[in-house]
Amino acid sequence: MKCKCVILALTVASVSSGFGIPSQTLSGVSSSKLSMSATADEKKTDAPPANIGWNSHKPVETVPDSLVREGDGPDGNYPMRAKFEKMCRDAQVSITKAIEEIDGGDVAFQEDCWVRANGGGGMSRVLSGGKVFEKAGVNLSVVYGSMPQEALQAATERGVDRAKGMKPGERVPFFACGLSSVMHPRNPYCPTMHFNYRYFETDGGLWWFGGGTDITPSYVNEKDMKHFHGTFKEVCDNHDPNYYEEFKDWADRYFVIQHRNETRGLGGIFFDDQNDKDPDEHFEFSKEALNSVVKAYGPIVEQHKDDDYTQKEKEWQLIRRGRYVEFNLVYDRGTVFGLKTGGRIESILMSLPETARWEYDYRPEEGSKEADFIDACRHPRSWV
Amino acid sequence: MKCKCVILALTVASVSSGFGIPSQTLSGVSSSKLSMSATADEKKTDAPPANIGWNSHKPVETVPDSLVREGDGPDGNYPMRAKFEKMCRDAQVSITKAIEEIDGGDVAFQEDCWVRANGGGGMSRVLSGGKVFEKAGVNLSVVYGSMPQEALQAATERGVDRAKGMKPGERVPFFACGLSSVMHPRNPYCPTMHFNYRYFETDGGLWWFGGGTDITPSYVNEKDMKHFHGTFKEVCDNHDPNYYEEFKDWADRYFVIQHRNETRGLGGIFFDDQNDKDPDEHFEFSKEALNSVVKAYGPIVEQHKDDDYTQKEKEWQLIRRGRYVEFNLVYDRGTVFGLKTGGRIESILMSLPETARWEYDYRPEEGSKEADFIDACRHPRSWV
Repeated sequence: MKCKCVILALTVASVSSGFGIPSQTLSGVSSSKLSMSATADEKKTDAPPANIGWNSHKPVETVPDSLVREGDGPDGNYPMRAKFEKMCRDAQVSITKAIEEIDGGDVAFQEDCWVRANGGGGMSRVLSGGKVFEKAGVNLSVVYGSMPQEALQAATERGVDRAKGMKPGERVPFFACGLSSVMHPRNPYCPTMHFNYRYFETDGGLWWFGGGTDITPSYVNEKDMKHFHGTFKEVCDNHDPNYYEEFKDWADRYFVIQHRNETRGLGGIFFDDQNDKDPDEHFEFSKEALNSVVKAYGPIVEQHKDDDYTQKEKEWQLIRRGRYVEFNLVYDRGTVFGLKTGGRIESILMSLPETARWEYDYRPEEGSKEADFIDACRHPRSWV
Repeated sequence: MKCKCVILALTVASVSSGFGIPSQTLSGVSSSKLSMSATADEKKTDAPPANIGWNSHKPVETVPDSLVREGDGPDGNYPMRAKFEKMCRDAQVSITKAIEEIDGGDVAFQEDCWVRANGGGGMSRVLSGGKVFEKAGVNLSVVYGSMPQEALQAATERGVDRAKGMKPGERVPFFACGLSSVMHPRNPYCPTMHFNYRYFETDGGLWWFGGGTDITPSYVNEKDMKHFHGTFKEVCDNHDPNYYEEFKDWADRYFVIQHRNETRGLGGIFFDDQNDKDPDEHFEFSKEALNSVVKAYGPIVEQHKDDDYTQKEKEWQLIRRGRYVEFNLVYDRGTVFGLKTGGRIESILMSLPETARWEYDYRPEEGSKEADFIDACRHPRSWV
């Protein structure tokens, strides 16, 4: 691990794949700026960029022991905040270490860290140009912000009046901490993997967990999928007999490239707004899921990193990476939120592959491996 | 020209770069589907795709002489509709012919055409794998749709009450016709070029013109830019002494990748909601601008198609193409509208380059040609 904390122009933290709150309702961002709807503001979308929040973050050479505010510590008012951050940071270290080892040990993750004046900050670890991995990144984010009450209501799906007692128009201060990651290996038989685990809390004491891990191969490999999904089924079953089915389906619904009527990849688990048990129980579930990423993904990469492949197979992988770009830039809530609110661009777009390809009207031959993959993206399958 | 009218699953026409009406307010699309804002619909964004409008279009082997409805012809109620379509179709033929010649004549544009049951349709011409051009496409679109009154109001910037006399909630039927194009040459010293000219009309008799042409090189070449901008300045000056300055600035404001605080390329002209003169005068301006595309762009490609370049320069071009993808998928109104409303995906995404590249935290060396280009994207320059 080398630490390269250069001066960054854009430094707001952002966690990919949605924090469970709608994109344009968070701190400091007027909704008109981001809305695509018809208003008198329409002309303003032609205006030069607003630089929302840019330069409000400060790159640091040495990352502090904790990015949560002092009063939030284990002995403070909000012990879960520090506990979740610690869990994320431990996972960031162990996951990047495991990935460096799989890659062969010659290339290290590069670390960029930053803090915000009012608390919070982030730490990106990115490995580029590896032997096995084209690009792999793991981002830690700690955010102190505020959101309108309506956003808070919308962020939860249980119909509880969470803004009870608040004045109309009053914004709700919130805390969010998350660890997110995307890994793009070189070999077309090694799948791309993404995860994102996060904890949300308002100063009023409301809280919820969200997250998930999903896999995006270029070809269907039943054995690999059985291993990947099986690992997370086991994790789910350790905590709730309903989790796996529910969260597997949720992933199949969330990771859809709607304009193509196909999923980005072959799913995994996805959950949000988790707050119906004791917080510690939810914490333990997130922790076990996060700590199972390497176990679920590592062996698949080890298995296929040296597989033979043709130029045609490489190009198919690049076409699927084009689809990955389409999903992330058009639909992924976390990405769109980050891009439009002055997030640290390099951390957000770390999720994009090094290379991607678009061919006009490309159609895989009927009966081919490529056609089978598309079929699995159009009709989500059961793997375990 | 070979005509390949294969069976297309997705066939709604769409014209890139904005029709001047907001994305989610057009025919058949509920705004909640597309809004990113916080509503009770939020959960629905995790729902499987809605297939809005898919299969509502029919691929045809032979494209009809005109795609406008019969009554809209030169002797009908709406002569401008047919006149504008004819102008677009003539330009589609002449521009693709010129591009085929520049490419060397070995590879032809492939044509896909489709019609809609209630009138309208489209024709895509795409050249892939050329000697000079990696990908070049010219799309004709003829759309009959309807939009809410608010969208109609918002689509114009002059504050006229265009829904006067209409019942609240009544949708406004509209007609739109446009020709749009993106050309991506292989050589990093040949710029990418985009244009889009369109005519809008409501059945109530309101109308406006919009369009523009802009250029996206990877390096600054003052002489090329002087020629490109100079050509369109001449076109503008032939019609109105204020056009060039106004439309040049508009392009510099519109083609901004806001999250990077830089423009996509080095601008050109962009205009919308043009309706303050006699319609024929506006028509003549659009016609001359459209028919000047080859004159403005062709010589630049001819000049540089065989320029020597290094691997590093090619990679820089691919990084700029990544930026092109970011603009088109995140900000371009026409693209976002098309993607989210069941447009013919292959025609819309024809605008994406064959290959694109993202490197983590890439920064050009100070004083380099790449840094100079970024500077020109951050501080739009005057070229003529």
